[in-house]
Amino acid sequence: MSRFASSAGCTAPLVPKLWAGRLGEHTSPIVERYTSSVADDVRLYVEDIEGSRAHARMLLEAGLLTPAQHEALDSGLQTVLEEFEAGTFVVEPADEDVHSAVERRLHEQIGTVAGMLHAGRSRNDQVATDLRLFAKRACVALVERIIELQSVLLRRAAEHRESVMPSYTHLQRAQPVTLAHHLLAHVAMLRRDAERLLDARRRCDELPLGSGAVAGSTLPLDRARVAALLGFAAVSQNSMDAVADRDFAVEITAACALLMTHCSRIGEEIVVWTSAEFGFAALPDTHATGSSLMPQKKNADVAELARGRSARVLGDVVTLLTMLKGLPLAYNRDLQEDKRPLFDAVDTTLDTLAMLANLFEVLRFDTDAMRSAASDSDLLATDVAELLVLRGIPFRQAHEIVGSLVRRTHTDGRSLADLSAAEWEAASGGAAPDFDLDAALRRRKTLGGPAPEETARQMDAARRRVEQLRTALDGMR
Amino acid sequence: MSRFASSAGCTAPLVPKLWAGRLGEHTSPIVERYTSSVADDVRLYVEDIEGSRAHARMLLEAGLLTPAQHEALDSGLQTVLEEFEAGTFVVEPADEDVHSAVERRLHEQIGTVAGMLHAGRSRNDQVATDLRLFAKRACVALVERIIELQSVLLRRAAEHRESVMPSYTHLQRAQPVTLAHHLLAHVAMLRRDAERLLDARRRCDELPLGSGAVAGSTLPLDRARVAALLGFAAVSQNSMDAVADRDFAVEITAACALLMTHCSRIGEEIVVWTSAEFGFAALPDTHATGSSLMPQKKNADVAELARGRSARVLGDVVTLLTMLKGLPLAYNRDLQEDKRPLFDAVDTTLDTLAMLANLFEVLRFDTDAMRSAASDSDLLATDVAELLVLRGIPFRQAHEIVGSLVRRTHTDGRSLADLSAAEWEAASGGAAPDFDLDAALRRRKTLGGPAPEETARQMDAARRRVEQLRTALDGMR
Amino acid sequence: MSRFASSAGCTAPLVPKLWAGRLGEHTSPIVERYTSSVADDVRLYVEDIEGSRAHARMLLEAGLLTPAQHEALDSGLQTVLEEFEAGTFVVEPADEDVHSAVERRLHEQIGTVAGMLHAGRSRNDQVATDLRLFAKRACVALVERIIELQSVLLRRAAEHRESVMPSYTHLQRAQPVTLAHHLLAHVAMLRRDAERLLDARRRCDELPLGSGAVAGSTLPLDRARVAALLGFAAVSQNSMDAVADRDFAVEITAACALLMTHCSRIGEEIVVWTSAEFGFAALPDTHATGSSLMPQKKNADVAELARGRSARVLGDVVTLLTMLKGLPLAYNRDLQEDKRPLFDAVDTTLDTLAMLANLFEVLRFDTDAMRSAASDSDLLATDVAELLVLRGIPFRQAHEIVGSLVRRTHTDGRSLADLSAAEWEAASGGAAPDFDLDAALRRRKTLGGPAPEETARQMDAARRRVEQLRTALDGMR
Amino acid sequence: MSRFASSAGCTAPLVPKLWAGRLGEHTSPIVERYTSSVADDVRLYVEDIEGSRAHARMLLEAGLLTPAQHEALDSGLQTVLEEFEAGTFVVEPADEDVHSAVERRLHEQIGTVAGMLHAGRSRNDQVATDLRLFAKRACVALVERIIELQSVLLRRAAEHRESVMPSYTHLQRAQPVTLAHHLLAHVAMLRRDAERLLDARRRCDELPLGSGAVAGSTLPLDRARVAALLGFAAVSQNSMDAVADRDFAVEITAACALLMTHCSRIGEEIVVWTSAEFGFAALPDTHATGSSLMPQKKNADVAELARGRSARVLGDVVTLLTMLKGLPLAYNRDLQEDKRPLFDAVDTTLDTLAMLANLFEVLRFDTDAMRSAASDSDLLATDVAELLVLRGIPFRQAHEIVGSLVRRTHTDGRSLADLSAAEWEAASGGAAPDFDLDAALRRRKTLGGPAPEETARQMDAARRRVEQLRTALDGMR
Repeated sequence: MSRFASSAGCTAPLVPKLWAGRLGEHTSPIVERYTSSVADDVRLYVEDIEGSRAHARMLLEAGLLTPAQHEALDSGLQTVLEEFEAGTFVVEPADEDVHSAVERRLHEQIGTVAGMLHAGRSRNDQVATDLRLFAKRACVALVERIIELQSVLLRRAAEHRESVMPSYTHLQRAQPVTLAHHLLAHVAMLRRDAERLLDARRRCDELPLGSGAVAGSTLPLDRARVAALLGFAAVSQNSMDAVADRDFAVEITAACALLMTHCSRIGEEIVVWTSAEFGFAALPDTHATGSSLMPQKKNADVAELARGRSARVLGDVVTLLTMLKGLPLAYNRDLQEDKRPLFDAVDTTLDTLAMLANLFEVLRFDTDAMRSAASDSDLLATDVAELLVLRGIPFRQAHEIVGSLVRRTHTDGRSLADLSAAEWEAASGGAAPDFDLDAALRRRKTLGGPAPEETARQMDAARRRVEQLRTALDGMR
Repeated sequence: MSRFASSAGCTAPLVPKLWAGRLGEHTSPIVERYTSSVADDVRLYVEDIEGSRAHARMLLEAGLLTPAQHEALDSGLQTVLEEFEAGTFVVEPADEDVHSAVERRLHEQIGTVAGMLHAGRSRNDQVATDLRLFAKRACVALVERIIELQSVLLRRAAEHRESVMPSYTHLQRAQPVTLAHHLLAHVAMLRRDAERLLDARRRCDELPLGSGAVAGSTLPLDRARVAALLGFAAVSQNSMDAVADRDFAVEITAACALLMTHCSRIGEEIVVWTSAEFGFAALPDTHATGSSLMPQKKNADVAELARGRSARVLGDVVTLLTMLKGLPLAYNRDLQEDKRPLFDAVDTTLDTLAMLANLFEVLRFDTDAMRSAASDSDLLATDVAELLVLRGIPFRQAHEIVGSLVRRTHTDGRSLADLSAAEWEAASGGAAPDFDLDAALRRRKTLGGPAPEETARQMDAARRRVEQLRTALDGMR
Repeated sequence: MSRFASSAGCTAPLVPKLWAGRLGEHTSPIVERYTSSVADDVRLYVEDIEGSRAHARMLLEAGLLTPAQHEALDSGLQTVLEEFEAGTFVVEPADEDVHSAVERRLHEQIGTVAGMLHAGRSRNDQVATDLRLFAKRACVALVERIIELQSVLLRRAAEHRESVMPSYTHLQRAQPVTLAHHLLAHVAMLRRDAERLLDARRRCDELPLGSGAVAGSTLPLDRARVAALLGFAAVSQNSMDAVADRDFAVEITAACALLMTHCSRIGEEIVVWTSAEFGFAALPDTHATGSSLMPQKKNADVAELARGRSARVLGDVVTLLTMLKGLPLAYNRDLQEDKRPLFDAVDTTLDTLAMLANLFEVLRFDTDAMRSAASDSDLLATDVAELLVLRGIPFRQAHEIVGSLVRRTHTDGRSLADLSAAEWEAASGGAAPDFDLDAALRRRKTLGGPAPEETARQMDAARRRVEQLRTALDGMR
Repeated sequence: MSRFASSAGCTAPLVPKLWAGRLGEHTSPIVERYTSSVADDVRLYVEDIEGSRAHARMLLEAGLLTPAQHEALDSGLQTVLEEFEAGTFVVEPADEDVHSAVERRLHEQIGTVAGMLHAGRSRNDQVATDLRLFAKRACVALVERIIELQSVLLRRAAEHRESVMPSYTHLQRAQPVTLAHHLLAHVAMLRRDAERLLDARRRCDELPLGSGAVAGSTLPLDRARVAALLGFAAVSQNSMDAVADRDFAVEITAACALLMTHCSRIGEEIVVWTSAEFGFAALPDTHATGSSLMPQKKNADVAELARGRSARVLGDVVTLLTMLKGLPLAYNRDLQEDKRPLFDAVDTTLDTLAMLANLFEVLRFDTDAMRSAASDSDLLATDVAELLVLRGIPFRQAHEIVGSLVRRTHTDGRSLADLSAAEWEAASGGAAPDFDLDAALRRRKTLGGPAPEETARQMDAARRRVEQLRTALDGMR
C-alpha cells in the first residue's frame, strides 16, 4: 500500500535553517516534511521577490545598506525571479517555504550579503505581505472574470429581449418573463459579487511589512516608503494585529464561496434546461460530454461541476475560520494553513467563471420550447386577479375568485382562456381578460419587471455598471 | 419518550390560508406544522407592519386605495402593532408566518378591506423586504456594540501605555510590548469588522418590494416612493433576482462569523491570562463562576463561551450557503431557512460583544506578573541582533551569533544579560547591549510598534476612527 | 429597536449558586444571562432526574445515605419530575442549567438533605450522563422513523414493480428502470443510516457518572451499579476523557447530517417529479401549498423544506466540531454549546423523516407519464451495444457503432427503433434489435438490477432487514 | 499575472474519447481541462487495474471473453501497472480520468481487444469500485497509525504512573492526577476513532461493480465472483444506489475530522505545556523550530500544525456533504468532487498521526514542574469536602464550608494546608485533613480514576484492546 507514504523518507537538510544558530541539532526529517509549506506557497515567488526588492530599497535609503550591497541584493533577486520564470528554479527538500527557498538561492548566488536582506523583517510580516499582494491581484483577476461572464450574459440577453419563457418559483411555472430578464437576474447577482470583492480588496490594501515578528523593529524602517513602492494604500496600524490577521483571506474566500453559490445556481439551471423534459437549451457537442457505457448520452457535465465545485469553496471558508478560531495573539503556525483554502477558492472560482462565460457563449436556446411552456393561460392567473383589483375587488377576494376558476377548469379539463364571457361575467362582474402573452409581458413594466422596454433600461444600466467596474480595475493594475 | 414529539398533534386551521381558493382541501396538520416559520419570523412584526404601511400609502397615492380604505388599513395595522408591543397578540396554529398572522389579525379587525393590502405584493417580495429592514438595523446594532467594546478597550489601553508584557508567538514569549499595544491589536481587528458590516449594510440597502412573486406586477406601483418611505437607498433592479437573493443574509452572517472568531481569540487569551500559570489577569467574583464539586475553583466561563459560541455562528454561515447551493431561480421554499441562522448569528454576536465589553470593564490586570514574564533578557535577543546589524553585521549572521549565545547561556544556566563584556566583545566585536526593558520598548517606535509614544499616536487615531463610526451610525437611525 | 435586547435586564439571583461559598459576591446578571443554558437543556429533565435517582440508590447501597435520607431524596425527585410532566415546574432566572434547577427545587421541597445528592458527583459527569441517555434514546427514535419511511417506500414499491420509468444520470434520461427500483434505492440508503445510528448508539453506551469533575472521587462509589440501574452497557474507562468527550454528539449529528442529505436528495426528486415538465408525480391538495399572489400555484414546499433543512444539520456538525477543536483536557465551558446542535439535528431529522413518510403515503404517481418518458428507443442504446457484444464485437467498438447510429437518427429526425433491417445489417452485421420496453427491463436481471423478478428479491431482502432493525430496537427500549 | 492561468491553453485530444461516436465534434479544450479529474484520481491506478483484472476474469468465466482475449487483457493490464510503478506512465492531456488513461494505454499496447474490457461496465460503477477499494485500505492504514500513536502513549504512560500533575478544567488547576492518567485519556479517545473507522470500513465493504451506469446490465455478469476476487464481503443491492452513493466517503472523512479534532486537542496541550509559563514539557531541538527573526525562539510548530490541520479535514466534510446535497438519483458529475476531500482527509490524518507518535516518542516531560503545579493544597479542596461527607455533612454544605475556607485563606495569604487544627475543628467539627499529594492520589481509586493501581488496570485493558485491534487488522490485509 505504497500510496499511504511513510513519513520518514526525507533526506537531511542541505543548508542550515534560518534559525540554525539557536537549535543545536538538525531538524528531524519527519518534522521538516510535516511543517513544510513550500509545495503550496511556492507560487508566491513573484510577490516574495517584489516584497524583498522593496524592502531592500528602503534599507538602502535608510542607510542600512550601502549602494553596492543593495545592488548585489537587487540583481541577485532579479536572477532568482528569472530562474522561477524560466522554470529552472529547484526547490530543495529543506526549503521550509518560498521565503526560505528564495533566501537560500540568493545566498548561493551572492554569498554573505544575502544575509542583510532580513534586517528589520521576519517571515511573519513577510508572508503577510506576500499574501496580501497576491490577494489584491486575485480580487482584480476575479472581477475581470466576472465582467467577462456578465458581458456574455448581456450579449445573450440582448438577443432575447422578447423571447418569452415561464419564470419559476418552487420549480413550478409562475408567470411569463423573457429569457433576457432571466439572464439579467444573473448579471445583477454577479454585480454584488464584484463589489464585494472590491470592498475586500480595499480592506486588504494595508502593508504589514515593518511589523517584524510581532513587535515592530528597533531599526529605523520607513514603512510608508515600502508601502508606496509596493502599491499599498496604507500601512497597518498595530504590529501584533498585522502578523496575526488573516481577515483578508477569510473575506475573499467567503466572497468566492457566495460567488460560487451563484455559479452553482446557474449550473443547476443549465442542467434543468438541458433535460429532455424541459428542453429549453442544448449544448453543442464541443461542450457536452458522453457516457462510457450509454451510447446515446449527452450530458452537461460542466454545469454539474460548476454546481459541485461550489461545495469545495464553502469547505475552504470553513477551514479558514475554524483554523483561526481560538488562537491567541499573535502569529501561530496554524496560520500557515491559510494558503491552500485561499488559493483553492481563487483558482476554482476563476476557472468556473471562465467556463461559464464560455458555456453561455455557445449555449443554444430553444425559444419555441420556452414560449410553449409559457403559453398555459394559468400563468396569467395573477394578471386576471390584478385586473379584478383594478375593477375594485380587494386582492384577497380576487385571488380567491381566480383560484376557484383555476380549480374548476382543472377539473373539467379546460384552462382559464377557455372560460366563456358569461362565466367571467358571473365570477368577476366584467368581461373576459386578455390572454395574449406578449401583451401580458408588456404590462409588467414596473421597475425591475420583465417588460421588454424595462429590460432595455435594465440592460443599459447594467452595461454602464460593467463599464464602471472595468474602469475601476484599470486603476488597480 | 414524549420529548420526541409526534408530528400529528396539530389542530385544524381556524382561518383559510391566503391561497385557499386554489386548493380544494384543508392543509394536513403535519404539513402545516412542518412548513410553518412563524415561531422564527414572528420577531419581524415591526418590519412587516412598517412595510405594509408604506405599501398601503403608495397604493393610496397610486389611486388603488381610497382615503377611507387606506385609513382603515393604516389604523388597523397600527392596532396590530400595538397588540404585539403589548404582548397581547396571539399567534394561531394556522398562521404560516408573520405575514399571514398580521394579515389574519388585520382581517379580524377591519374585515374585507384587509384583503386590499396584498395588491401588487407577494409574500416573496414582502419577506425579502422585512428581512432587509431587519438586516440593516442589525448591522447598525452590531456596529454600536463594536464601538462599545472598542471604547472599553481604548480606556483600558490608556491606563496601560507603559505596562510592559511579553508578546507571544506560538504561545512562546517573543518580545516586550505593552498591555496597551496588545489591547489595541483587538481594537484594530474590530475596526475591520465594523467596516465589513457597514459595507454589507450598504449592499443590503435595496428595496425588493414591487418585485411581486417573481415577475413584478401589472399594477401601477411606485417602487421609488416605497423605498423613500422605508428609508431604502435604492430599489432592486431585477424582479427575479430580488426574490431569489439572500446574499445580504450570507454576507452579514459571514461578517458575524469573522467577528465572533475575533471574539474567540479574545476569549482564548482571557482563559490563558487567568490561568494560575500565566496569572496576568483575574476576574472579580461577579464575573467568575465556580464549580459544583470543587470548592476552590474560579473559572472564566464567559470567556470560554465567547470562544465556543464562535462555532455556532460558523455553523450558521454553512447552513446559509449550503441551503442556497444549487437552487434554480427564483424563489424556492428552502429560502425560509434563512431566518434562523441570520437571527442566531446576530443575537449571538450582539450578546458576546456586550459580554466582552462588560468583562474588560472589570478585568483586573496583574501588571507585575506581566512585567516579570517580560523580564527574561532572552526576549531582547532580537534587539541584540539588530544592534549588531547597526554595527554592520549582516542580519542572518547576527541572528546566528545571538542564537549561539542564547544556546550557550541556556546550557550553563545564565541569561543573555549575564554575559560578560569580554564575551560580548568576542562574539560581536562590541560592547554589551543594554537590557533595560523600558528602553527596549522605547526603541520599538516604527509605525505600529509598541513604543509608548507610538501607542499614543495609535490611540488617537483609533479614537478618531471610533468617532467616525459613531457619526456614520447617527446618519443611519 | 427593542428586539436587539439589552443584555442588562436580568434580576438578581434568588437562591445561592451551587458554588456560592467560594465566591464572595453575587454573579453579575449579564454573566448569569450569558452563561445560562437552561433554556436549551431543560428538556433533559427526565434524564437528569433518572440519573439522580440511580446515583441516590447507589449512595444508599454504599452506605453514604441512610434509608430515610434516600427515601426523602427519591420521593422529592419523583415530585419534581411530576411537576415537570404537569407543566407546573417554574424555571427561575438564576437557574444556570437543568441540573441546578432540579437541585434548587429539590432543596425547596425537602430542605438540607437535598445537599447530600451531589456527593461524589459533579455537573461535569452529570451532564455527560444526561446527554448520553438522551442520545441513546434519540438514536432509537431516529431508527424508528427510518423504519417508518422505509416501510412506506416498500409499500409503494410493491405497487410499482412493473411501472417503467427512465433512470437518470446527469438529469438526462439514461436507461429504463421501474418506479419500484427507484424507490428501493432510497430504502437502501436509509438502511445505512439506520446502521450508522445503531453503531453510534453502541459507542455512546458508556456511563460517565462517577468520573467527578475530572479526577474521579475519593468516595466509595459503585459505578457498575449505576450503569446497571440506568441501562448502560459499560462504564467509561478514564475520568478525564469521560468529562471532556463529546464524540457521541458529533457522531450522531454527523449521522443525521448524512441522513438529511439523503432526505434532501429525495426532496429534490419530488420537486423535479412534480414540475409541469416532468409530471411524474402530484401532491394532493392536503400536502401542497399555494401562493399568496399567484392563484394557480400548487407547490411542493414540504419537499423543498426537506432539502433546505439538510443545510441546518450540516451547520450543526460544523458547530460541534469547531467548538471542540483545540480544547485542552478536560472539561471546558465551551462544551455547553453541544446541546443546541445535537437537539436541532435530532429534531429536524425526526420531523423530516415523519414528513417524508407521510408524503410518500399520499404522493400520486403518473405512471403513464413515466412510461412515456421511458419510451424513447435511445434509452435502449446500451442494450443494443450489449447485443453487439454478444455478437462478438468489442464493447468499445459496439459503443461507437451505436453512438454513430444515434447521431445519424438525430440528424434525420428518426430514432433507433426507426432504422431499417438493412441499416442494422450494415452497421452491426445482424438483425435489428428488439425495442420492447418490458422485455428490456426483464433483461436487466443482474443482482441489483431493475428486472421485476430481481426487484421482488430485493424487496424481500429489504423487508427482512427492516424486520431485523425492528427487532433490534425492541431490545433497546 | 500569469499565475491566474488562462483556461484556454490545452491542446487537442490525441485519442478519441470513450464516447466519441455519439458526439460529432471534438471536445473544447477548456471543457476538457475543466472536467478532467486525472490529476486527482491518478493515484487510484492500483485499484483501477485490480478492478479491471477481476472484471476481465469474470468476463472470461462468463464466456464473454476467449482465453486468448483474456490473456491479452490481463497481461496488458499488468504492463500498464508496471509502467505506473516504474514511474514511466505518461498521463495525456486528453485523459479525462485514471480509467480513461488506463484504457487508452491498454489500447495503445494491445489494440482493439482492449475495447472488450468495458463490456458490462460503466465508469460510474468502476469509479465507485476503485474508490471503495481505496477507502477500505485507507481505513486499515489509519487504524494502523492510531495503534502506533496509542502504543507510544501507553509506553510513555507506563513511565509516569506516579508522576503527579494537576488536572485542569477551564484551564484552571482542578485536582491532582498523574501524567499517565492524562495520557490514557488520549488513548481512550483514539480507541473510539479506531472503532469508528472499522465500522465505516465494514459499511464500505460492498462491491458496486456490475451496477453499470445506473441500471445494471443485460449481460450475464457474475457479481459475486468479482466481489470474491476483489475481497469484498458483499455486493451492492440496488444499481441506482450503487452509483449514486458516496456515504462511505462522507463517513470516513467525518471519522477523520473527529480524529483530527482529537489531534488538535493534543496539539493544543503540547503548545500549552511547552510554554514558559507551564513548562511541563520541552521539545528536543530536532523537533522544535526557531524564528527567522528572534534568535531565542523555540516553538512547537508541529503541534500547532496538528491543531491547524484539523480545520482542513472539517472543511473536507463540509465539501462532501454540500456537494451531495440536493442531487437527484443517480450519478451526477458533481460526484467527481468526492476525491479531493477524501484523499486530503486521509493523507492529512495519516501524516498527523505519524507526526504525533513521533513527537510523543521524544517529548521531554518536566515532572518536577508538574508536581510543583499540583502541590497547591487548594487542589485538595474537593477531598476535604468529601471527607466532611464521610463525617456526615451533606455535600452541598461541605462544599460551602470548604469554599469559605478557601476564600478566607486567599484573603490572608495562606492556603488550606496552613489552617490550624482549631480552625478545622471550628469549621468542620473534626481534625485537619491530610494534604499529602500521593495519598490523595491513591484515594481516587474509583474505576476510571487516577490512582496508580487503577491506572495499572486501565493500561492493561488498553493494551489488550490495542492487541485486539492489531489482530483485527491482520485479517483485513
